[in-house]
This record gives sequence, C-alpha cells and structure tokens, in this order.
Amino acid sequence: MIGARTAALLLEAGAKEVVLYDNLSFDAPDATLRDLCENQRVRLHQGDVLDQPALEAACEGIDGVFALAGFMSAGIANNPALGLDVNIRGAQHVLQACHVCNVGKLVFASSSAAYGYGAIGGSISESEPFHSAGVPAPPALYGASKVIGEQLCKLYREMHGLDYLALRYSTVYGERQHYRSTNALYIIEAYDRVARGLSPILFGDGSDTKDFVYVGDVARSNLLAMASTASGEAINISGGKPLTVKALADTVIRLAGGTMQPEYRDTPTSGFRITTDAPFFYDNSRARTLIGWEPEVDIEEGIARMITWRKNVAAQTA
Amino acid sequence: MIGARTAALLLEAGAKEVVLYDNLSFDAPDATLRDLCENQRVRLHQGDVLDQPALEAACEGIDGVFALAGFMSAGIANNPALGLDVNIRGAQHVLQACHVCNVGKLVFASSSAAYGYGAIGGSISESEPFHSAGVPAPPALYGASKVIGEQLCKLYREMHGLDYLALRYSTVYGERQHYRSTNALYIIEAYDRVARGLSPILFGDGSDTKDFVYVGDVARSNLLAMASTASGEAINISGGKPLTVKALADTVIRLAGGTMQPEYRDTPTSGFRITTDAPFFYDNSRARTLIGWEPEVDIEEGIARMITWRKNVAAQTA
Repeated sequence: MIGARTAALLLEAGAKEVVLYDNLSFDAPDATLRDLCENQRVRLHQGDVLDQPALEAACEGIDGVFALAGFMSAGIANNPALGLDVNIRGAQHVLQACHVCNVGKLVFASSSAAYGYGAIGGSISESEPFHSAGVPAPPALYGASKVIGEQLCKLYREMHGLDYLALRYSTVYGERQHYRSTNALYIIEAYDRVARGLSPILFGDGSDTKDFVYVGDVARSNLLAMASTASGEAINISGGKPLTVKALADTVIRLAGGTMQPEYRDTPTSGFRITTDAPFFYDNSRARTLIGWEPEVDIEEGIARMITWRKNVAAQTA
Repeated sequence: MIGARTAALLLEAGAKEVVLYDNLSFDAPDATLRDLCENQRVRLHQGDVLDQPALEAACEGIDGVFALAGFMSAGIANNPALGLDVNIRGAQHVLQACHVCNVGKLVFASSSAAYGYGAIGGSISESEPFHSAGVPAPPALYGASKVIGEQLCKLYREMHGLDYLALRYSTVYGERQHYRSTNALYIIEAYDRVARGLSPILFGDGSDTKDFVYVGDVARSNLLAMASTASGEAINISGGKPLTVKALADTVIRLAGGTMQPEYRDTPTSGFRITTDAPFFYDNSRARTLIGWEPEVDIEEGIARMITWRKNVAAQTA
C-alpha cells in the first residue's frame, strides 16, 4: 500500500531506478504492482528482510532506502515470534545493509504506535513516552518494536554515521487498503458492510477518536524525508486532527451512498482493538518545520478516493 | 550475581532440585558457583537461551523458572544484534519452553529500565510509561527489550494460561558485583578507586539520584514471587529511596576507610551513562501488597557486605 505508492511517486519525480524488495508474503502481484513493474526503471527483487545476504545484494549501488517491511498488531497477534523477528532483526538487517552498501539515507517507517495506547490524550508531540499499561499485548509489542527500530537507527547513526529519518505514520488509509491495520479497519470494514447494505459496527459509544492520514500524503512525506538534509529525528506524519469513530462511520455511509445508522457493540477486552482514554491527535508541526510536509488530502476526499478504487477493483474482478 | 543468590536461597528453603541453566559466557565457574554445584541438589546445565531445544530439555519436569539471562545497556552497546536477540528471542524461547513443559510459574527478570530515562522524576509506580526521548540508544534499547519481554509474558498468559510475575528490579548491587550494570558502576568503580587510594569520580555535580536494591533482597523477592498466587503483574523491586551519587560516593569512601573527596567530571553525552532530570525512586508498595516483600538491607549495610566480599575474593586470589 505505502510502498507501491512511494515507488510511483519516485518514478514521477524522475528516479533513475526503483528496486522493490518484497517477500510477496501478503499478496501475489496485483494490477498495481504489475503496472509498476512494466516500467523499465523498476526492478522487483523478491526477498525477505530476514535474509541478510539477499538484502545486502539488493542494496548494492542504492542511494536511498525506504524501510517499509513490518508486521502490525494483528500480524503480531497471529505470529508473535516471527513478527518481532521481522520488525526488530529485520530493521537491524536493513540498517546493516545500508551501512555496508554505503546507502546515503534511510527513511524508516515507524508508527504512532510508538506512543502506545491507553492513557494518552490531547496533542501528542514527538517527545511523548510509550504507554503500555493496560494495553493488550499485540499492539504493545507492535509499538515497542517500532521504538526499538528507531533506537537501532539512532545507534547506526552514532556508530556509522548513517543518515536517517524515522517517520511515525498515524493510521494510513486510502487506495490498496488492506485488513492488517487495526485502526484502518474502522474505515474498510465500515465500507464493506455499507456496500452490502449492512450497518457499520461501532465499538463502545462511538466517541473514541483516531488520527487518519491519507496514503498519498504518506508517500509524499517519504520523498520529502529522503530529499531533506534532516537526519537523526523522529517525525509525526499524521492528519493532525482527532476524528470520532462515529463521525467516521457517518462519512463512510454518506460517501458510499447508504442511509443506515451505525450499530453499537461493546469494545472487546482482549485482542488488538484498542480504545484511548481521551480524544487525541498527533501534532504534525515538526514535519512542516523539518521536511516541509503537511497533509493535503482531507478525510472526505481520501475516503471518496478509497471507495472509487475499491469499486474499480470490484468491477475488474467481477 | 542474582542467579547464584537465588539458587542458594532456594536450597535453604528446601528445594528438591535446582537447575542452573547458563551459557557461562561471562565467567568460568567461580568459587560461589563451584560451592553451589557441590550440593547434590544442584545441576548445572550449560546452555544458551537462544538454543530452544536445549532450553526445553532443561525445563523438563521443572515446577518454576526464574528467567534471569539477559544483556544490559553496556552489553547491548557492544553487540546490539546479539543483545536484542538474547533479550527478546531469548525471552520468547523461555516462555515457549515453560509452555511446552507445563512449568507452573515463571518469574521474569524485568528492570526499572522499563520506565526509560530522562524526563522521569518523583515516585515512579508500575503504570509509568517508557521514556526514551533524548536517551542514548543502548539504555533505550535495553529498556525497550524489557518492555517487550513483559508483553511476551502477558501474551503467553493470555494464549496459554502461563502464570508469571515480572519483577522490575532497580539497580542491583552487592556480593559478586560485576561491571555490566551501568548504574551499579557508581558503587563498584568508586570502591575500586578508593581501594587504590584514588578519588571516586562523579559525573555532573553529584546531585543526580539512583535507586539501589541489595542482591539478597532481590533473591528474596524472586522466591516470594514464585510462591505467590499473584500472576500477570509487573512489580517494582527497589530500595524505594532516591540516593544522590554524591552521598553514595561519600558512603563508599567512609566504609572503605578512605579520607579523600570525590572528583567531579562532565557527564558524557554519548554511550550508556544516563542522568535523570529530577530525583526519583521506584515506589515498591505494590511488592508489599502483592507478594509481601520489602527491602531489608539498607545501603550502608549492603555496601559494607559488598566490600567484605570483595576483600575476601582479593585475599583468596592474592
């Protein structure tokens, strides 16, 4: 989702070559990936971040690396050992490959999960600590794995002078939306139900908030981070606005042409769905200062684009 | 240091068998370990927590496991890849071994490093988040690896019903003091210098604080945690008092019979020495409530015991 969009933007910007390093564990190449690979400047290298020699071979002669591979909360719940291995040992392998191949800059995909969940609220800046008290294990492990990834970046910069920026994406949504991002499920599952004439489901009273950021904005932040001279920093890449899950469900219903009302259910106490104690958003002012980025696509426009993409895929596969 | 002391206490308490699982990577067996192993109820099993089959073989028929193996900040600075592997994959292996061998209870050695460093102060209870902003990478990685270890315990309890307690030891000191614990260096390095007639070195103005806990008290907390019916909790095991490094140096000088004054130097800005912004201590009231533990040996008595041990070792090896 983020990788293909970033690759497309790199090609638009005139990149000489784009190497896609992917183990293709989630999907067989779809139309988007096939289209990308038809470009003469794109090379798909099937490999795994846990395979250090293959990774180092792929990084030969590369100017900049976007480290986007990783397990999220749901994946970690299914396979914690592999998930932590990919997120932590995988990050260390990417850093080592960047070091031995003299890569000029690394953009590391971190996450707002690096702030944890639970007792957070208000405007969350990059100095906020990691909250895990009372948080279910899978999202806590996911967040902590991102904290470790960032600290490994810091260590490689101190030890080897490797330049990097860590981007803490909030909940990314948009075209090529998948089902692996816990908080993006609020959008895609709501749409799936509305498309079948069913009410979207809200957990709790619908008042808890999320901070969504559009995938095209995220891809643009990746390019700006790569081009920037800033290094050694963590930066929030977020919508920067709290949105209640009730307002979100209403927006999805309206844009999908539905007339139903959301249905309310109790929030599950285990698993990887998490609520927060108070409305919050991730302050993105540092992204403006350091890399000249701000979000451009609002939630209405972003969801409309996601729905259009979704209908096109449905039409193509029908 | 903690393991041998815990083993000795288990034998005193009448344990039928004590298995020591250790890769002996730090030390060849010393007098303490040789003495322990002369006991018919002790079995030394040389193995590594990264060796899953050996670990599972060692856990066969075991009632309770104390998971004490791990890298600390200085070790992680020297070998981050191996350190994270031992602390994270190692913890996961121990949990898996406990699960497949139907071990009744796990006591997991966590650390006050799970609160991080920097912007912490006052009384720190178990709900405090993990602070890493501005913290050097090695201690941040160490602390985050303990956060992950605890969350893995939580996951195994949810998934497989494995009972555990995570004990967040503050800076442990006492007999068999080694040089791998960053904050315990304030004691042992001060003593080493005083013993040679040199002034102990203080970084900064000597006003930053530490929270020390005596190794015998820690061993006792391990046994109480094992015997307790409490499960699924993290508990501070600490002195529960802030002590300035200046007061500490003065105590070491006095107990070692020196007359010098400490020498002041600037705090290094990199590496793994860390200062905190304000005096702090780890609130140990939950340990009292949950497992009936409180510290018994104060810093004067503990340092006196450490010095006696140290002199005996010096006399034996002279």
